[in-house]
Amino acid sequence: MTILGLVAGALTTGCWLPQLLRSWRTRSAGDISWTYLGVLGLGVTLWLSYGLLTDEMTIILANGATVCAIIVLADLKASFDREARETA
Amino acid sequence: MTILGLVAGALTTGCWLPQLLRSWRTRSAGDISWTYLGVLGLGVTLWLSYGLLTDEMTIILANGATVCAIIVLADLKASFDREARETA
Repeated sequence: MTILGLVAGALTTGCWLPQLLRSWRTRSAGDISWTYLGVLGLGVTLWLSYGLLTDEMTIILANGATVCAIIVLADLKASFDREARETA
Repeated sequence: MTILGLVAGALTTGCWLPQLLRSWRTRSAGDISWTYLGVLGLGVTLWLSYGLLTDEMTIILANGATVCAIIVLADLKASFDREARETA
């Protein structure tokens, strides 16, 4: 059962890499909602605290990596949205 | 501790609503990566199976709702990407 959870966790964490690469390559993230990123970021941070409190390494690693990916994507989105406004 | 997990699950599930609304309102989802949706969809489906096998209702409900949201977003993205290609 743990294998299934580990693979699921790896996929739901690893999926951020292609999204970050796409946003970087296209220099555009306008279609991604700020509210989506904010609510998801808060949820993942709570999962991270849940993992820390229950001392579950898989939950800590998966959600820790996802929090980092969301912070990077939010930073990319902020700069690309600014660029888009300036050139509009 | 369950409350923390329930709130985290509600946020990481509820976050899809603003993203679906944004994509619907702007009729655009080009910035969202197909690979991201595919890998995330597979991961969430595995979490759903994990929940079914371990009979954990919170995991079943959260990931079941997320699978539905990803299917709707993929459908929106397919039609809006097609529209964008036809008008390009």
